[in-house]
Amino acid sequence: MNLQIDSSKLMAELKHLSTFSDAPSPAVTRILWTEQDMKARAWLKGLALEAGLHYREDALGNTFIRLKGSQPDLPAIGTGSHTDAIPFSGMYDGTVGVLGGLEALRAIKRSGVKAKRSLEVLMFTAEEPTRFGLGCLGSRVLAGAIELEKIRALKDSDGIDVETARGKVGYTAPLETVLLPKNYYAAFVELHIEQAPLLEQEKLQIGVVNAIAAPASFFVHLEGEGGHAGARLMPGRRDALLAAAEIALAVETAALATDAIDTVGTTGLLEIHPAAINSIPSKAKMGIDIRDIDGSRRDQAVNQVLETIKKVAAKRNVQASIELINADPPAQSDPRILEAIRSSIATMQISSLEMVSRAYHDSLFMARVCPMAMIFIPCRGGISHRPDEFAAPQDIARGVEVLARTMLTLAEQ
Amino acid sequence: MNLQIDSSKLMAELKHLSTFSDAPSPAVTRILWTEQDMKARAWLKGLALEAGLHYREDALGNTFIRLKGSQPDLPAIGTGSHTDAIPFSGMYDGTVGVLGGLEALRAIKRSGVKAKRSLEVLMFTAEEPTRFGLGCLGSRVLAGAIELEKIRALKDSDGIDVETARGKVGYTAPLETVLLPKNYYAAFVELHIEQAPLLEQEKLQIGVVNAIAAPASFFVHLEGEGGHAGARLMPGRRDALLAAAEIALAVETAALATDAIDTVGTTGLLEIHPAAINSIPSKAKMGIDIRDIDGSRRDQAVNQVLETIKKVAAKRNVQASIELINADPPAQSDPRILEAIRSSIATMQISSLEMVSRAYHDSLFMARVCPMAMIFIPCRGGISHRPDEFAAPQDIARGVEVLARTMLTLAEQ
Repeated sequence: MNLQIDSSKLMAELKHLSTFSDAPSPAVTRILWTEQDMKARAWLKGLALEAGLHYREDALGNTFIRLKGSQPDLPAIGTGSHTDAIPFSGMYDGTVGVLGGLEALRAIKRSGVKAKRSLEVLMFTAEEPTRFGLGCLGSRVLAGAIELEKIRALKDSDGIDVETARGKVGYTAPLETVLLPKNYYAAFVELHIEQAPLLEQEKLQIGVVNAIAAPASFFVHLEGEGGHAGARLMPGRRDALLAAAEIALAVETAALATDAIDTVGTTGLLEIHPAAINSIPSKAKMGIDIRDIDGSRRDQAVNQVLETIKKVAAKRNVQASIELINADPPAQSDPRILEAIRSSIATMQISSLEMVSRAYHDSLFMARVCPMAMIFIPCRGGISHRPDEFAAPQDIARGVEVLARTMLTLAEQ
Repeated sequence: MNLQIDSSKLMAELKHLSTFSDAPSPAVTRILWTEQDMKARAWLKGLALEAGLHYREDALGNTFIRLKGSQPDLPAIGTGSHTDAIPFSGMYDGTVGVLGGLEALRAIKRSGVKAKRSLEVLMFTAEEPTRFGLGCLGSRVLAGAIELEKIRALKDSDGIDVETARGKVGYTAPLETVLLPKNYYAAFVELHIEQAPLLEQEKLQIGVVNAIAAPASFFVHLEGEGGHAGARLMPGRRDALLAAAEIALAVETAALATDAIDTVGTTGLLEIHPAAINSIPSKAKMGIDIRDIDGSRRDQAVNQVLETIKKVAAKRNVQASIELINADPPAQSDPRILEAIRSSIATMQISSLEMVSRAYHDSLFMARVCPMAMIFIPCRGGISHRPDEFAAPQDIARGVEVLARTMLTLAEQ
C-alpha cells in the first residue's frame, strides 16, 4: 500500500492553527467558544470540505469529519483529540491528533484504498478545563459519563453557563442529542504527543499506550482562626496553613506508600487567607490530584489522605471540608487495537515502547463506549502546556502513518 | 491637680477622623499621602492651632504638636502614634495615641499647670506598611534606624517612589532633615489600644508595656521544577510546595523549641506557581515572621529555620533564597518611665497589668534615640485591623489621663 503522509502540508496546518490564539506567538491561548476558537473551527471545517470529507457538529461543538467506508452502516473507526489550548501553552497538544487524524484520512483517500468501515476524526470540545473548570467536557457528554444536569450547572468565571455560552455561538440543539448512539465506533484510537520525556530519553519512535491513568481530584477547604502574628501566642493557634502543610506532605507520603511507581499524588493548588506576612492564615484551599492506572490502588492512596485530613483537622482544631472534583476510573487499552498498532509498527520497521498515559485524555471517556487505545509520539524534554512545547515533523508524520495504518487494519475487522 | 479629660470631645474627634477614609463606614482605609490622608492632616493641624499649640511638620510629614514648657530648651517629653489605617480596618489603632495625646496636652493646658519640659504629640508618618511595603517609615527615619538610600529606593505598587510621592503633597525639604537632633526627647511614651484580649480577659484597666517584641521577617523564594501532575512520577520530583510545607512546619517547631511563651513564628504568606491543580508547583514564595521580646532568642529561632531551609532545599533539590525584610531589635521599656506610669495608676486607683507588646509600634524605633515606654488600653475581643475594632470611651479617657499624668511627672524630672 502506498500511504504518503504530506508532512509539509500538515506542519503548515499546525502552524496556521496556532495563529488562532489570544496570546502572542509562540504562545497559544485558545479558550472554548471564544472568537479565536470559533475561527479555528470554521477553518477546520474548510479543510474537511476541501478534502472531500463529510463534516458535522453536535450541540456542544464536538466535530466529526468522516471518510465513508464501503459498508457505511457498520460501526466506524474513530480517531481524534482536541484543539483548545490552555493560556500560554503550545501548538502540539491535542492539535496533532486532530490535524494528524485529518491527514491520515486524506492520505488514505489519496492512496485509493477503500476501507470497509467508515473512518472518522473527532475534534472534542474542551478537553482542557480552562473555561468551565471541568476537563473533557465534550467527551464526557458523548460517552454519557456525566449527568447533563451537572453540565448545565457549570458556569465560567463571568458567571455564564454552558447553555447560554453554546447558544451564543450557534449550538442550540438539546444537550441530549450529544450522546453517541450505541456501537457508533468499533474502535477509537487517539494520536497524541507524549507530554513526558520517556520516548525521547529511550530514543524510541512511537509509544503504544496500554492504559490511561485517571485522577481523583478534590479541593480541601480548611478554616482555622486568624490573628496578629505577633500578638497571638503559639499555644491554641488554629493555623490553616500549617494544617495544609501537613496534608500536602501526606499526599506525597500516600503516593509513595503504595510502593507502585504508577501512583502519583500532587497538591497543585494552595491559596491562603488573608495572605499577609504578619497575619496567621485563617483559611486555606488546597487542590489535590491523585492518579494511578489501577483504580483501587489510587483509591487506597486517596483514602489514606482523607484519613490524614481528619487527623490533622482534629489535632489543629481546624475545620476541614472536602469538595470532590472527579474520581474517574482509569482505562485499559483494547488488546485488539494494541495488536493493530504493533502490526503497523512492525510493517514500518520503527522502534516503540509500550507505556502508560499518565495524563488524562478524551480517550479515557471514549473507553466507556468502545474499545480504545492511544499512540504517542516523542515530545521534546517532555515539555507540554508551555510555548516551547515541541514535536519534530518526522515524528509527527511517523505517528500519523502509524495511525492511518492502524485505522485501516481495524476498518477491515 | 484638677486634670479633666474631655471624653465626649475626644470621642467626637475620633469619630470625625474615621470619616477621612476611602472605605465606607465603619471600615477605615487611610493610605499615606492620599487625598483622605492629606485632609485628615489638615484637620489635625486645625485642632492643634485651635488649642493654641505649636505645630510643625518635617519632610516626611511626621507632625509635631507642642505645648511649650517653662524651660523650653530642655529635651521634651514626647507622646504620639499614627493615623494611617490599612484597608478596611478600624478607627482606634494609632488614632487613640494621636488624638488622645492631643487631648492630654489640652487637659494639661486647661488645668493651668505649667510643666518644666515641653510636652509634644508626634503623629508618625506611615506606621502601616500599606503604601511602600515598609512599616514605621516615619519613625525609622526620625530615629536614624534606616539608611536614607533604602527609603529613596522604595516604590509603591504604581511604581511611584517616596521622593516623588512626598513632593506631590508638598514635602520637599531634604530627607536628611527628618533625623531627630540628639536629646530631642527626654522620654517618649505612646498610648495605644492593646490589639490583644489580655486586659479584657483579666478585667484590668491599663496595660503597662515593659517590652516591645520585634519581628525578624523574610521572604523565602523556592524554585524546583514543574511538570504535569500525572506524567511526572514521584521519584526525582522537585516540588517547591512540598519544600515550603516542610519549612512552614519548621517555623512552628522553631518557635516552640525556645520553650519561651514569647517566641512566636508565623508563615503568613505562601504563593505558589503555576497554581493549577494538575501541575507540580515549580515555585513558591513564603513570607515568614518570627518575633520575641528577647533578640538573641528570636535570632536562635530564625537560625534554626534558616538551617532547616538549607536541609530541605538540599533534600528536595530545590533552590532556596532568602530575602530579609527586617530584623529590628526588640526594645525594653525604660524603668523610670514605667515608674512614672505606675505612679499615675496608683494616684488614679485603677487596675493594671505589666505586659509585653507583641505588635510593633513606632515606639520600637523611638527606643533607639530616647527612653521609651507604652501604655495600653483594653480592646474588645483583642480585635484590631478590622472595622469592628472597638475601645470603650471610658477606657480611652482613662488611658489619656494616665498618659497626661505620666507626661507631667516626667516633665518635672
